[in-house]
Amino acid sequence: MADKASDSEIREAMKALPHWELEGDGIVRAFEFNDFSAAFGFMTRVALEAERMNHHPEWTNVYNKVLIRLSTHDAGGLTQRDFKLAAGIDAIAGNA
Amino acid sequence: MADKASDSEIREAMKALPHWELEGDGIVRAFEFNDFSAAFGFMTRVALEAERMNHHPEWTNVYNKVLIRLSTHDAGGLTQRDFKLAAGIDAIAGNA
Repeated sequence: MADKASDSEIREAMKALPHWELEGDGIVRAFEFNDFSAAFGFMTRVALEAERMNHHPEWTNVYNKVLIRLSTHDAGGLTQRDFKLAAGIDAIAGNA
Repeated sequence: MADKASDSEIREAMKALPHWELEGDGIVRAFEFNDFSAAFGFMTRVALEAERMNHHPEWTNVYNKVLIRLSTHDAGGLTQRDFKLAAGIDAIAGNA
């Protein structure tokens, strides 16, 4: 299991994730697409990446909008797995 | 556009949707699956049905759990389109 990141590790990791924001014990990013089809297509790619990493997002979709929250429940906060998945999601979104 | 359902129409429709609950101006149902793969497989089938009906859910997924909320924003509340999509979702879930 990944260890909970320290405050300095979180600060360092967030430098590489400018589109993400700290919120409580997780990080969040909102995405907006042209329509539902584009939003769900994105979600499908993220789902495959999440399954490959065996680390899954908390996410909400309303039509063309997707809100993703990442945190590692087992560790009680953020771990390197969250930062890696965030980077993977950024790559899928095309603006890493 | 579908018309907003009256209170009596809502009561009648809900009789056929025993797994759904009224919440504010929408209806909600929570689903639980064995794992993320099963949950996202279900979501993919619901996404296709929603796109076919051109009526889309508000939904949240956390690992094996999916929470779906249906409402018709354009009508300011529930319409027959919500009840039809709910029935379609029930059919996909295998317990209509």
